Amino acid sequence: MDVFEIISVGNELLNGKTLNTNAHWLAKAITELGGFVRRCTVIRDDVEEISSAVRESMERGVDWLIVSGGLGPTYDDKTLQGLAKALHRELILDEDALKMVKKKYEEIVGHGLLKRVELTPARMKMATLPKGSKPLPNPLGTAPGVLLKEGRMNILCLPGVPAEMKSIFKESISPIIEERRKGFYHEKSVHITGIVESELAPLIEEVLKSHPSVYVKSHPKGRKEGVSKIEIQVTTTADDPSTALRRVEVALEQLTSIIIDQGGMVDEERMT
Amino acid sequence: MDVFEIISVGNELLNGKTLNTNAHWLAKAITELGGFVRRCTVIRDDVEEISSAVRESMERGVDWLIVSGGLGPTYDDKTLQGLAKALHRELILDEDALKMVKKKYEEIVGHGLLKRVELTPARMKMATLPKGSKPLPNPLGTAPGVLLKEGRMNILCLPGVPAEMKSIFKESISPIIEERRKGFYHEKSVHITGIVESELAPLIEEVLKSHPSVYVKSHPKGRKEGVSKIEIQVTTTADDPSTALRRVEVALEQLTSIIIDQGGMVDEERMT
Repeated sequence: MDVFEIISVGNELLNGKTLNTNAHWLAKAITELGGFVRRCTVIRDDVEEISSAVRESMERGVDWLIVSGGLGPTYDDKTLQGLAKALHRELILDEDALKMVKKKYEEIVGHGLLKRVELTPARMKMATLPKGSKPLPNPLGTAPGVLLKEGRMNILCLPGVPAEMKSIFKESISPIIEERRKGFYHEKSVHITGIVESELAPLIEEVLKSHPSVYVKSHPKGRKEGVSKIEIQVTTTADDPSTALRRVEVALEQLTSIIIDQGGMVDEERMT
Repeated sequence: MDVFEIISVGNELLNGKTLNTNAHWLAKAITELGGFVRRCTVIRDDVEEISSAVRESMERGVDWLIVSGGLGPTYDDKTLQGLAKALHRELILDEDALKMVKKKYEEIVGHGLLKRVELTPARMKMATLPKGSKPLPNPLGTAPGVLLKEGRMNILCLPGVPAEMKSIFKESISPIIEERRKGFYHEKSVHITGIVESELAPLIEEVLKSHPSVYVKSHPKGRKEGVSKIEIQVTTTADDPSTALRRVEVALEQLTSIIIDQGGMVDEERMT
């Protein structure tokens, strides 16, 4: 299974202004494509921080490093500088990226939002990429995505604007991950009442002994009218979708029957 | 200003099931208390991962390390094991923590949700803390928070259940951070239209030259009816609240007047 790490770049994620929905969306998309997200790191707009975080991921060893944020035209968009530093590569003006940026500004001029396309330093910056990069078209914005390889590691940079991030990922990257797919992920959740989490713990351990390839997690959901509710999530990744489905179903069946034996009640949820 | 790092522990944060609202809430609370959040790391429920992430934060040097998640009774709650490993400390049954846990189960028995208080291994686990820890009362759940010192670094462990995390932070930690406060944070945002982000970039740089102590960030908010909208956020941290307020106001005034000169329009928002 391909191992992924995500780096989210942006001061607004660290001062509490912006909720990091990008990392959440990416983690879900990658998991559904059969990948394994090992770590997510949130750092500020700082060349040294970006460079260190990239190098730390490289040292841990990953198949994919996804960096979101910091590709725009303003002074605090520093992802490509940080990446170039981490990889000891030059930043060079990429002709294909420049064409993409130019085309976008022609569209903006076409909409009457700008008088003429002028390739200012701020705009050229979005086309100035670490040597060996491949720019990826951005269907919804001006800054292209960036894909490059360093050894066996694929590095993908995406803009921080959520719609742009998602559209580049879906158009340019999902098909590549899908093609490399070695695992199929499946999950199912149930809600239980009538049993507290500390009573549940040994029951889960019992089920895991006979089903070592599934993963079971309990999420306490608080009390309602004096009844404590717990969500139990069973997940697995298998070589094919039907094995994954079967494994989850069998483990969940055993778990729910033990819970009912112990006086708990189980509400099945629709599959998530 | 105190430097903070946040570590969020939980597989559910890395497989896309759960949005990391805890880190967002903590980052906002810490920023408002005058602290500086330098990094946030999301890792899975794994003793080695937890231990490595804690050691990495220690090596970078922080005043506060806040770890959320993984304090509960189930097999995959491993934060205290990981922390003990990172700090080379023994895990010992803490008498005060045990009293807190016992009291909580007596309340649960009182509500008729459990027949009697039995100190099972799963429950004792929540009171088994790295040597030298101080347990913190959890007003809304069973697992106590944990506070300990390692050199100059304060390490705080909070449960992953959002309501419990918040209540322990507010009751036990906010007052300590407040007392150590050396900086006052202030921010204000405006929305602008009629100018694109790449035109804005050099204007922001101009303002920053004369106001080096403020930080200006632009957030593109997409187009509505053909008009592109950008949010500009001006922030600073100063020794006292009125200096912080004045700095932001002065910088924002200069910036908006330049933007209007360039044909942009500015909508003031209420203070965020």
